[in-house]
Amino acid sequence: MLYAQIHLTLPPWIHDEVDAQRLYPDDDSRIALAIDLSRRNVLHRSGGPFGAAVFDTTGRLLGVGVNRVVPSQCSTAHAEVMALSTSQQRTQRYRLNDDGGRVTLATSSQPCAMCYGALIWGGIDELLIGARSDDVQTLAGFDEGPLPADWTGELEKRGISVRRDLMREAARDVLRSYGESGIVY
Amino acid sequence: MLYAQIHLTLPPWIHDEVDAQRLYPDDDSRIALAIDLSRRNVLHRSGGPFGAAVFDTTGRLLGVGVNRVVPSQCSTAHAEVMALSTSQQRTQRYRLNDDGGRVTLATSSQPCAMCYGALIWGGIDELLIGARSDDVQTLAGFDEGPLPADWTGELEKRGISVRRDLMREAARDVLRSYGESGIVY
Repeated sequence: MLYAQIHLTLPPWIHDEVDAQRLYPDDDSRIALAIDLSRRNVLHRSGGPFGAAVFDTTGRLLGVGVNRVVPSQCSTAHAEVMALSTSQQRTQRYRLNDDGGRVTLATSSQPCAMCYGALIWGGIDELLIGARSDDVQTLAGFDEGPLPADWTGELEKRGISVRRDLMREAARDVLRSYGESGIVY
Repeated sequence: MLYAQIHLTLPPWIHDEVDAQRLYPDDDSRIALAIDLSRRNVLHRSGGPFGAAVFDTTGRLLGVGVNRVVPSQCSTAHAEVMALSTSQQRTQRYRLNDDGGRVTLATSSQPCAMCYGALIWGGIDELLIGARSDDVQTLAGFDEGPLPADWTGELEKRGISVRRDLMREAARDVLRSYGESGIVY
C-alpha cells in the first residue's frame, strides 16, 4: 500500500501567540517575529529551534513557520518550508510574488541547503537572516548542508536581496538555550 | 488568520498504475519506475514531468512521488520531496535509513537545488538519476537552481553514492514531450 498524502501542521500555540493582525513594517519587527517563533517552539517543545515568517509589501503577515521535523516525522518540515507553504496555501499562489507584490522571508537562522533552494522557488524578493550557519552548527549541533560558494550572489542573480546578522545575538541565544537543554528535536 | 496546515496529495492514478507489491531489485527497474511516473504525470496532466521512488535494501517500494506544484499551489511539492515525505509517513521515520537499512532514491531527473538538500536530510544511501540538469532546462524549460560546484562529492562525503545517466534517453523523451506539448505545469 502506497501512502499518497502528507499532512503537516503548525502547533496550536501559533494561533494564540502570534499577532496576525498587526503590521510588521521593517526589518527589525520582521526578524524579531522569526526569532520569537524559534524561541517559543523550543519552550513548547513543538520542534527544533527555528522560526520563519513571510510578509507582503505592506508588512502584513502572510504566514509563519516553525521546525516540525520530529513531531511530523518529516525531514522537509523546516521552518522556512512551513512558512512558505502555509503562505502559498493562504494566497493560493505557488510563487508568492506572482501578483507583483514584494515578498519578504525572515528566518531566525541562515537557511540550510534544502531551504536555500526552497526559497528560490517560493517567489520571494527579500531574505532576512538572524543567526549564521556557524551559530547553528556550533550552538545547536545541526548540520546545515552544502551551499554554492557564492550563495548570496546566486540569490541576487535571481532578484532576491539578502540581509544577514539581524538581531544575531538574540537568535544565537535561542540556539544556545536549545543546545544546552539536551532536547533532541 | 494564519494558515496552520499543509495537505499534499499524490494523484489517484498512483494506486491503480503503480505495482506496489513487486520487488524492484536493481538500478534498471528502479529508475524505470521513476521515469514511468514522470511520463504518467504528464499524460494525466497531474503535474510537471518528474517522478521519483524510494526503495529499501530488498527493493521493496517505500513510496513514490510526482511533481504536484501547480495542482497543490505549493512550490515544495517536487517529485523527490513527495517521495521522501510519503515514505517517511509510511515508515514513521524522518531519516529513512535510521533502522540500519540501505535506502535508495531514484529520480527521473537530476534533483534541483531544493531537492538536493532534501535528499541529504531524508536518510538515503544511494541516489539514482535519469536525465541531467541540462536536459531539464533545455527540453522542458525549468530552472534547476544553483548547486555546490562538487555536488556529487558533497553527497559522497555524507555517505550517499550517486549514479547518473541511467536510462537517460527515456527520461529525456518525457521532458521533450512535455516541452513540446505547451502545457505549463
